[in-house]
Amino acid sequence: MGKHRLRPLDLRHGVVELPHGSGGRATAQLIDELFMRHFRSEALAARHDAATLPQTAGRLAVSTDCFVVSPLFFPGGCIGDLAVHGSLNDVAMAGAQPLALTAGFILEEGFPLEQLDRIAAAMADACARSGVPLVSGDTKVVERGKADGVFISTTCLGRIPDGVELSPSRARPSDVILVSGPIGDHGIAILSQRPGLAFDCDVKSDSAALHTLVATMLAVTPELHVLRDPTRGGVAAALNEIADQAGVGMLLEESALPIRGAVRAACELLGLDPLHLACEGRLLAICPQSVASAVLQAMQAHPQGQEARQIGVVLSAQGPQCFVELRTPFGGRRIIDWPAGEQLPRIC
Amino acid sequence: MGKHRLRPLDLRHGVVELPHGSGGRATAQLIDELFMRHFRSEALAARHDAATLPQTAGRLAVSTDCFVVSPLFFPGGCIGDLAVHGSLNDVAMAGAQPLALTAGFILEEGFPLEQLDRIAAAMADACARSGVPLVSGDTKVVERGKADGVFISTTCLGRIPDGVELSPSRARPSDVILVSGPIGDHGIAILSQRPGLAFDCDVKSDSAALHTLVATMLAVTPELHVLRDPTRGGVAAALNEIADQAGVGMLLEESALPIRGAVRAACELLGLDPLHLACEGRLLAICPQSVASAVLQAMQAHPQGQEARQIGVVLSAQGPQCFVELRTPFGGRRIIDWPAGEQLPRIC
Repeated sequence: MGKHRLRPLDLRHGVVELPHGSGGRATAQLIDELFMRHFRSEALAARHDAATLPQTAGRLAVSTDCFVVSPLFFPGGCIGDLAVHGSLNDVAMAGAQPLALTAGFILEEGFPLEQLDRIAAAMADACARSGVPLVSGDTKVVERGKADGVFISTTCLGRIPDGVELSPSRARPSDVILVSGPIGDHGIAILSQRPGLAFDCDVKSDSAALHTLVATMLAVTPELHVLRDPTRGGVAAALNEIADQAGVGMLLEESALPIRGAVRAACELLGLDPLHLACEGRLLAICPQSVASAVLQAMQAHPQGQEARQIGVVLSAQGPQCFVELRTPFGGRRIIDWPAGEQLPRIC
Repeated sequence: MGKHRLRPLDLRHGVVELPHGSGGRATAQLIDELFMRHFRSEALAARHDAATLPQTAGRLAVSTDCFVVSPLFFPGGCIGDLAVHGSLNDVAMAGAQPLALTAGFILEEGFPLEQLDRIAAAMADACARSGVPLVSGDTKVVERGKADGVFISTTCLGRIPDGVELSPSRARPSDVILVSGPIGDHGIAILSQRPGLAFDCDVKSDSAALHTLVATMLAVTPELHVLRDPTRGGVAAALNEIADQAGVGMLLEESALPIRGAVRAACELLGLDPLHLACEGRLLAICPQSVASAVLQAMQAHPQGQEARQIGVVLSAQGPQCFVELRTPFGGRRIIDWPAGEQLPRIC
């Protein structure tokens, strides 16, 4: 490339135009002058349609996520780093160390290039901090009013170390349930910015990459049974899914749930259950009781797990139903159901 | 799952609703009752956030594409099979045999479930015919008016056989340029359906998976230099990109270009250059002259390459410019430029 006969992109005042998605000279210019300024990987520079990865041996984990979060920028992050962390964490929850990331952008005609540039910078920064190269990408443009600024899909590819066998179906009665930090920060950070809902609140998204925390935990013991990041649907959806798949029940201790005061207050204001709020940088771990305290100590020694704690235990299922229950400080129990309606659209 | 307390989805009259993207019970229902009915892979059934692939050894190719084609259904296909073929072909152009596919769906609230069901069926059918399992997926829902029915992103992962080294930078002067079949069918099939542009025309999209054709060609010789599928931007963009990257010129013979009569007629009607039209099931191959006729014979013996032919040759660059030129039947030459403006938005 490099011999475009187009004027340089105006990254301060310019906007996305339909030709940027045409596959012609304007597309090449957007890639060169905006995306390639931020992303520098050998695979991208080769400009194949497909990226080639070096020799890999072992089991691979792969996950794809779409990101449609609104607003695009929020306290603690933006759609760019969220899209990196989201797919990376899914792969980390299989115990894998991430190898490579791909990204697809769907842009709305008229979207400011200055914002796209900030999003690309945030993605590149998240990739660099996580040590995962972006190796392949695609950009499409749709007409004004046919999308909402920018949607991003990312796919992460990782390698699962030998001996690691994480699976939601491996949760067993008497296993303990750990969480790596306070829950619901991401959900409240997004909601605090919503037009019509905006409220004063100093909660930042927990958006973060969790693969080094996972590696630390697996170094203590490969005998973890389940890892899961409680994103959309929150801890409630994540634990209900696991309970269903493993055919077990679960009992959480309400007093043990790490929830920031500001998140708790916002939930009361909005009538939300913190267990339904999305996290984007927390994980749930289910492991045998025998290794729980060693795993917990390792988590607490890691920057992403300083506030880790045990929140419950796995029980035998009560008949055909796999209930997740919560014990209140007064000894009562209530069932934690899946989130039913759409309280929280476009949280990620 | 399986114990939803929701009414079964109405796949004939129902529509996508915001709760289908919430990560709760409605999301699980959409996955179970619509997507899982079509896609049956072990990895999907395991319901991890990330899919685990079996032991793999070797170089991997990975590619991501977003699909925003409009209309969603067109002669010869729909966004579903297009999304499978698109990423699969990108990986095939690296010489790789595809191993697995992932898909992300961005759905607009109100989108008819009946159409989503047909799209999922077409994807599953394309996966089955290509022998590539869909191993992981994600579904998001945005409010009415914030998307356009459905956007799909797919990522394909493939393994590159030892000894295969395809790269656009490997095009060399005196190499020959082959094409696997008639060009522009996909572009015209889409345009013939556009509101305001709709015209009578019996051209069907060429949307197809090309990996078995590639395997056939590589079985003749690993000495292919470049493979490229001329999608967005058509043959003109594909060859200009390769010429730029390899630092070479190219000369095409106009009389050799395989273009159907109906495509030629539609191009004249619409004022389009067939070389700018997208194909979604054709490939360009650049290889040494010494192997060209054997490769061409192998292509012609394959169902996807019956109309394959040589269309030009690679030349030394003329100074700093890497021109792609076309020789007319009368001996004149004209430069084939990149498509400049946005003639053809949302062609894929």
